[in-house]
Amino acid sequence: MATVKSDIEIAREAKMKPILEIGKKLGIPTEDLIPYGHTKAKLSLDFISGLSKKKDGKLILVTAINPTPAGEGKTTTTVGLGDGLNRIGKKTMICLREPSLGPCFGMKGGAAGGGYAQIVPMEDINLHFTGDFHAITSAHNLLSAMIDNHIYWGNELGLDTRRISWRRVMDMNDRALRDIVCSLGGVANGFPREAGFDITVASEIMAILCLATSIEDLERRIGQIVIGHKRDKGQVLAKDIKAAGAMTVLLKDALLPNLVQTLENNPAFVHGGPFANIAHGCNSAMATKAGLKLADYVVTEAGFGADLGAEKFFDIKCRKAGLHPDVTVIVATVRALKMHGGVGKDDLKKENVEAVKKGLANLGRHIENVKKFGVPIAVAVNHFVTDTDAEVKAITDFCHEHGVEGFKCTHWADGGKGTEALAKHVAALADKGSSQFHPIYDDAMPLWDKVKTIAREIYRADDIVADKSVRDQFKAYEAQGYGKFPICMAKTQYSFSTDPNLKGAPTNHVVPIREVRLSAGAEFIVVICGDIMTMPGLPKVPSAETIGLDAKGQIAGLF
Amino acid sequence: MATVKSDIEIAREAKMKPILEIGKKLGIPTEDLIPYGHTKAKLSLDFISGLSKKKDGKLILVTAINPTPAGEGKTTTTVGLGDGLNRIGKKTMICLREPSLGPCFGMKGGAAGGGYAQIVPMEDINLHFTGDFHAITSAHNLLSAMIDNHIYWGNELGLDTRRISWRRVMDMNDRALRDIVCSLGGVANGFPREAGFDITVASEIMAILCLATSIEDLERRIGQIVIGHKRDKGQVLAKDIKAAGAMTVLLKDALLPNLVQTLENNPAFVHGGPFANIAHGCNSAMATKAGLKLADYVVTEAGFGADLGAEKFFDIKCRKAGLHPDVTVIVATVRALKMHGGVGKDDLKKENVEAVKKGLANLGRHIENVKKFGVPIAVAVNHFVTDTDAEVKAITDFCHEHGVEGFKCTHWADGGKGTEALAKHVAALADKGSSQFHPIYDDAMPLWDKVKTIAREIYRADDIVADKSVRDQFKAYEAQGYGKFPICMAKTQYSFSTDPNLKGAPTNHVVPIREVRLSAGAEFIVVICGDIMTMPGLPKVPSAETIGLDAKGQIAGLF
Repeated sequence: MATVKSDIEIAREAKMKPILEIGKKLGIPTEDLIPYGHTKAKLSLDFISGLSKKKDGKLILVTAINPTPAGEGKTTTTVGLGDGLNRIGKKTMICLREPSLGPCFGMKGGAAGGGYAQIVPMEDINLHFTGDFHAITSAHNLLSAMIDNHIYWGNELGLDTRRISWRRVMDMNDRALRDIVCSLGGVANGFPREAGFDITVASEIMAILCLATSIEDLERRIGQIVIGHKRDKGQVLAKDIKAAGAMTVLLKDALLPNLVQTLENNPAFVHGGPFANIAHGCNSAMATKAGLKLADYVVTEAGFGADLGAEKFFDIKCRKAGLHPDVTVIVATVRALKMHGGVGKDDLKKENVEAVKKGLANLGRHIENVKKFGVPIAVAVNHFVTDTDAEVKAITDFCHEHGVEGFKCTHWADGGKGTEALAKHVAALADKGSSQFHPIYDDAMPLWDKVKTIAREIYRADDIVADKSVRDQFKAYEAQGYGKFPICMAKTQYSFSTDPNLKGAPTNHVVPIREVRLSAGAEFIVVICGDIMTMPGLPKVPSAETIGLDAKGQIAGLF
Repeated sequence: MATVKSDIEIAREAKMKPILEIGKKLGIPTEDLIPYGHTKAKLSLDFISGLSKKKDGKLILVTAINPTPAGEGKTTTTVGLGDGLNRIGKKTMICLREPSLGPCFGMKGGAAGGGYAQIVPMEDINLHFTGDFHAITSAHNLLSAMIDNHIYWGNELGLDTRRISWRRVMDMNDRALRDIVCSLGGVANGFPREAGFDITVASEIMAILCLATSIEDLERRIGQIVIGHKRDKGQVLAKDIKAAGAMTVLLKDALLPNLVQTLENNPAFVHGGPFANIAHGCNSAMATKAGLKLADYVVTEAGFGADLGAEKFFDIKCRKAGLHPDVTVIVATVRALKMHGGVGKDDLKKENVEAVKKGLANLGRHIENVKKFGVPIAVAVNHFVTDTDAEVKAITDFCHEHGVEGFKCTHWADGGKGTEALAKHVAALADKGSSQFHPIYDDAMPLWDKVKTIAREIYRADDIVADKSVRDQFKAYEAQGYGKFPICMAKTQYSFSTDPNLKGAPTNHVVPIREVRLSAGAEFIVVICGDIMTMPGLPKVPSAETIGLDAKGQIAGLF
């Protein structure tokens, strides 16, 4: 019996082409590709600007049912579908998020697809890559240092040191930095105050970089960041600290999309990676927009399940970046649907058509939801070796009854060949031009009503509830002129409700809003329902303990 | 009258060659140069290993008199001499340190030479460059996170949380992080304890990276780091925390030398940048050793004046990396010598031959000192427009009387053409092979005696003094097996003594040792005399406030 190869083994056997060659296929001249090694490159801003008059390709979003511990394989399917489209002769680019470095040292595992549907060089992508996250960390912490420096030298702006909301960041799982007291040690070190660190992906700078549509827009957004308040409660912005210019300088290369390739040598942008809870969880607008100019089809993904990821993709990213999605692919797996149907993790290998059918309520609701945004849908059944034909058929039959088509996809084992049927259908849907995309709420709607619209239309909750202080905060943001911003929901990804244990398609629930935060630079209002962790910790035995270079100089223990 | 161009204007007018072309001149195949953009590249480890049987070129150290606010131009002279040697037909490489990103946002100014003796691309080199410092920051902070994680999950090693000496680092001037209390906020965040941040260049990882001679040596040294002590005062090492492998993975690219070019398209390695006080202050051993295989001459520099920089270059870097310097060039300026001769900063423009002559005592002593290491000497008089011929002649006459030759060098205005005379002399000295280099103390000498040797022979102090606790610490290190390590002196760079105001060539002083620290991974003992700042702050009006991108998208306000 053949041994199943690990992701890293497959990735290492990849026959990568020089990145300049991948770029050439897209019509990018050598001087506009800034290489980082021989298999990674950034695309120059000048070249991107020069594309503005070209017609946009078709935009395909890959999203998923609510995630379960069984795994759905959204990134893997995004890569597989991209390879499949290229395989059937459609000029296609893939747009993915960049993984974060810190978590690699906690739990084993990368974020560059899997099996024969991966982007490479996977080790580089998962570690320092082209330095984007380091640049974001530097820019973020420069602002932090300038804030404390301002206070140290006299605090001319009158910042209330108890009300500084701008923290520091590090791309590391380090719970010891969540809450600190800084500026200890005497007069030379400033005024002691409470502070803390988040992981870099949770930085507002990350969200800003991913939504900015130009270097000017980046600087404008950075200037708008609210870093804290004065004793009279007036806001202090990053531009008041005079930090926006220097921060933009630190980010000027990070703003450029990163080009890599799939195992089948198809082009992929991997750029930006904002949190999918307190931020919108999609790759950069710069990359997606550039991709649409360079290819006829762009396949991209959004974080978590469609209730969170697709909703934010539509209502935040597409709204703000002027994108018009043509097709949405919802990824489901037999295993995950079984879990939504009530099966425990240990019993997933046994055939259980009834449980699949029961769990399909989850998929069905996501299909209904995406329809509300006016975007045509296809379903990808990401195949696992233990899936039976009867189980797969239950899904495709269900899809057909609901007016969409579902396809068994074997890209994990077969690469692009395994998504050919899906690819043909998706291309046909996109080419038909039937998408009538629109966000689910208008800019002008009051903030409270925007949240209620999402909760009712997408989560199928009866209502939203919040303390008076939270409701007052919504009104205060509207009074300050932030009422036109979209909403960025932060809730559990495991359920339509705020209870992670409510699988399937729960109804009759209520969404309690615990907290609301302003991301004035990212230009959205974060609505927090439940516990949101912005600085992870390491597990008892972190994978870092077994990571190292082997005798051949290759990385061991990381994947 | 012609306007004098600024460094950045000159750098922007540079006609840079593709870095692959620069590499080709050195015989480096394309696949062994890992490009970072079109004008920066890293050299592969495989290629470096393959050079081991080649004959070494000649090694030329550029050092200086004690620095003054007037400036000496050591980096500028290193670049100018490298260009001059290439100009007279000598195949020469330059090896410099990488500048730190953080300080760029405090005071205006870069660290890539000046005038027509610069390395380019200067903006990249001064900012993120190839990400080496970010990798060092990540590796350092991974160890920090793993230490607090170990304590959180039960502290099996029995670390005393009051005795953790491993801090965190950030490449930013941020005084608020010098002293913090971390792990606040309750049970989920660990056990509150005192902690703090240093700037990345002060990280022991930086010193280790610069002294490591292979990836295996890097990992071995990291494992040796002492991160703290147990309640029974036993040491805890990085390898006890099982961090060395993962840290080495994070540093595997940072270990590779970075290739750039001078304005005259000559090759330069810019790699590593350890502090010149608590560390040894030279570029990486990897780069210097690779340079010696690739070129017939390597010009490199050491931090601060020759009393600190050259001494550590000889006694730490050359000793440990097995280097044999052939010539030492001591840089002096008329202006700086005037300051050593008692002239104030405001009166430097007036001709004052007597002051120059008086200040020459400082140069004279450095000449005597370098002779003690057995290395032939030349003097570079780095020319300023206000210098008079009589002043320059006073220096060259003095040199001649002391058995060495001094040369007026106009590389700042003229590039390599301005150092031709110096270059010819230096090449001749090197080719003669008369260097009889040896460190100034033996490995076997007791630690206290090593310090006394440096203080007497180099600083010309009568003695060294220290509290009993410090003297006991020396003995404790010897008992622990660290007695064979060299000494890394941390004292003011402005004087031979520990009093920064004692210019010229002071005698009859005593060197008080305030503190002694072990850098077990870097393999030296740091002896601290005076205040050493390992985390700078920003000034009242940081240059960050005026840094930004101009209408052309070019960086303004940085230089």
